Amino acid sequence: MALIVQKYGGTSVGNPERIKNVARRVAEYRRRGDKVVVVVSAMSGVTDGLIKMAKEIMPLPSEREMDMLLATGEQTTIALTAIALHSLGVPAVSMTGAQAGIITDGVHTKAKIRNITPKKVHGFLDGGNVVIVAGFQGETPEGQITTLGRGGSDLTAIALAAALKADLCQIYTDVDGVYTADPRIVPTARKLPEVSYDEMLELASLGAKVMQSRSVEFAKKFGVVFEVRSSLNDNPGTIVKEETKNMEDVVIRGVALDKNQAKVTLVAVPDKPGVASRIFKALAEANINVDMIVQNISHGTGTPSTDLSFTVEKADLLKAEKVIASLKAEVGFSQSIATDKIGKLSIVGVGMRSHSGVAAKMFETLAREKVNIDMISTSEIKISVVIDLAKGEQAMRAVHTAFIG
Amino acid sequence: MALIVQKYGGTSVGNPERIKNVARRVAEYRRRGDKVVVVVSAMSGVTDGLIKMAKEIMPLPSEREMDMLLATGEQTTIALTAIALHSLGVPAVSMTGAQAGIITDGVHTKAKIRNITPKKVHGFLDGGNVVIVAGFQGETPEGQITTLGRGGSDLTAIALAAALKADLCQIYTDVDGVYTADPRIVPTARKLPEVSYDEMLELASLGAKVMQSRSVEFAKKFGVVFEVRSSLNDNPGTIVKEETKNMEDVVIRGVALDKNQAKVTLVAVPDKPGVASRIFKALAEANINVDMIVQNISHGTGTPSTDLSFTVEKADLLKAEKVIASLKAEVGFSQSIATDKIGKLSIVGVGMRSHSGVAAKMFETLAREKVNIDMISTSEIKISVVIDLAKGEQAMRAVHTAFIG
Repeated sequence: MALIVQKYGGTSVGNPERIKNVARRVAEYRRRGDKVVVVVSAMSGVTDGLIKMAKEIMPLPSEREMDMLLATGEQTTIALTAIALHSLGVPAVSMTGAQAGIITDGVHTKAKIRNITPKKVHGFLDGGNVVIVAGFQGETPEGQITTLGRGGSDLTAIALAAALKADLCQIYTDVDGVYTADPRIVPTARKLPEVSYDEMLELASLGAKVMQSRSVEFAKKFGVVFEVRSSLNDNPGTIVKEETKNMEDVVIRGVALDKNQAKVTLVAVPDKPGVASRIFKALAEANINVDMIVQNISHGTGTPSTDLSFTVEKADLLKAEKVIASLKAEVGFSQSIATDKIGKLSIVGVGMRSHSGVAAKMFETLAREKVNIDMISTSEIKISVVIDLAKGEQAMRAVHTAFIG
Repeated sequence: MALIVQKYGGTSVGNPERIKNVARRVAEYRRRGDKVVVVVSAMSGVTDGLIKMAKEIMPLPSEREMDMLLATGEQTTIALTAIALHSLGVPAVSMTGAQAGIITDGVHTKAKIRNITPKKVHGFLDGGNVVIVAGFQGETPEGQITTLGRGGSDLTAIALAAALKADLCQIYTDVDGVYTADPRIVPTARKLPEVSYDEMLELASLGAKVMQSRSVEFAKKFGVVFEVRSSLNDNPGTIVKEETKNMEDVVIRGVALDKNQAKVTLVAVPDKPGVASRIFKALAEANINVDMIVQNISHGTGTPSTDLSFTVEKADLLKAEKVIASLKAEVGFSQSIATDKIGKLSIVGVGMRSHSGVAAKMFETLAREKVNIDMISTSEIKISVVIDLAKGEQAMRAVHTAFIG
């Protein structure tokens, strides 16, 4: 008899019929003798509808009141899910985040979980019930309702699994698991049976978004093993867990292509202390998230100067160009060149640590495909290159074939 | 500076535009320097939509889960109302029933308020906020969400007014107040400036439904003076309060016609102990609410027998006929006659106690109109007669003219 936490997202509980499907799956686990805690999101579309009404009244509504408002979405789903389980003859009890003992800080709309006291959850489980917990929400020690922000329901599930010392945490979604690459681009991509937290984090941050990074980080911190799998079939998904010795046998776990980046290059930036800090402080103050930064050694005969390139999200490019233009006189670079016709291609794998020649093999593969490399950035378990967007998918397939097959 | 509790029903908060109107009214009271607590219902249609979804999943959903589900309706409205007040520059804070300290018993879907600890409400009021409380809901001492059943938001408002020792409680609705009769039937009907709890209770139970009886009873028990008024204009409404000496100067406060009754007559029922009990116990077991019961003295030469008549709601008539038919052999009446072509005409007034000849004047008026009286029932402050439905409105106008003008 295992204790399982299952999380179902907004699409999986999008209407009464789908909620019944979720209930059928939960009922099956329970019939095997497992204790089941179910975490659900708001039905798809509900949260957006609530936000729309609030903005109709006031464009920038109070965050405390938005939490009060949005928390109703998950509360609706938990009640309907409990009813669906009852209709199958399964005892079930719904609980709001607050009732389940999820205590957060007071940062409305993006609260952090401080601790979980799942005494009542245990009580209902011991009474033979499936317990349905509202995802995405909690309350402050003072009893104010809070929400956890994007990916909040995944976080609820993983945090509950940790607090309950669950044997298994399953994140049900509309994909089958984590793939070696996006199967729509790479036909030979295959589902990974397992992946380490760090690899999952790199893949998530590289545009292969199955889950928000914060949930994976939380799982890593508390050692919660979880499975990402589909709510549409019974196929096993991908197990995400701490790195094991044999994981290193696989050099590259996955290949990701992020088409959502843009690049800015400052040409002939004076190479003196404080220049980079001035530029990136200004970008940060404008709330622009900078991803890759590449600066090469300086050259030139008079005042030494260097070229500085960085990438930002496409949506931020215009704003970034304005910030850079405003710095031109002060910083004294000769010109800035911006383009959003780039793709960021990355390979990820913990095996990289113990295998040499990975970067060389990647660059060689790209050279064979006549793909020029604009920027390179590496971490311990990842190599990213910025290339021409038009050649992105071709390059991705070639790299996938070279490393994975 | 007064402390005012205002309650707005589902129609008054039916969409974002109407919620803004409510906010404007609240803001005006606050600008005068009043402290305001606002109780709101779910937006009209929302509760029905939730019930529909639940029944799609299961025809008879669990009452605990229905409370969890339906409580989201009011929670949505409080957040939107607070946001609407913010948009007018008025500090406002929303609170669920549980947060406002409304503790109930554990009878889901029709919980009774046990006590209110409005410490947090006072805190927010003292901080200069308008406090918006979700009507219709509370929680058990164990932290389970409950709802109060029909008319629950009125009850929340009146109970809060009592707990907060409010100076005034205003129930905003879509009628202007309590009238001497339904103005759609009696053109000369006029709005009552005031009415006693008992008169209001009789009028409510007689089909002149502005509020559910339980809220009026609660107000009476705790001496909460409240005003019923319209959310569509600024006209003063009707004050409902404890009976005062001068109220007795008015003999009849109002005339009501209930067209929703049906009558069953059992002819020649053996007049022996236990017969009436057998009949009404069977009806009660079938969940049929019996209103008037009339039994006259027995007659006949052999076994004494009597005629027994009672009224039920029209919707229950078929069920009542079945129950009666099943008792025929056992009880031994000669036949049963049922009709739903009746109207129950009532006059209500505390002045009846100190004025004689009221019944005589009513019967005389009806006789002049050639209206035959089928059944008569009286209480200390009310006289009801059952008459032919076709003559109901004519009789109502005649009685109104005779007593009120």
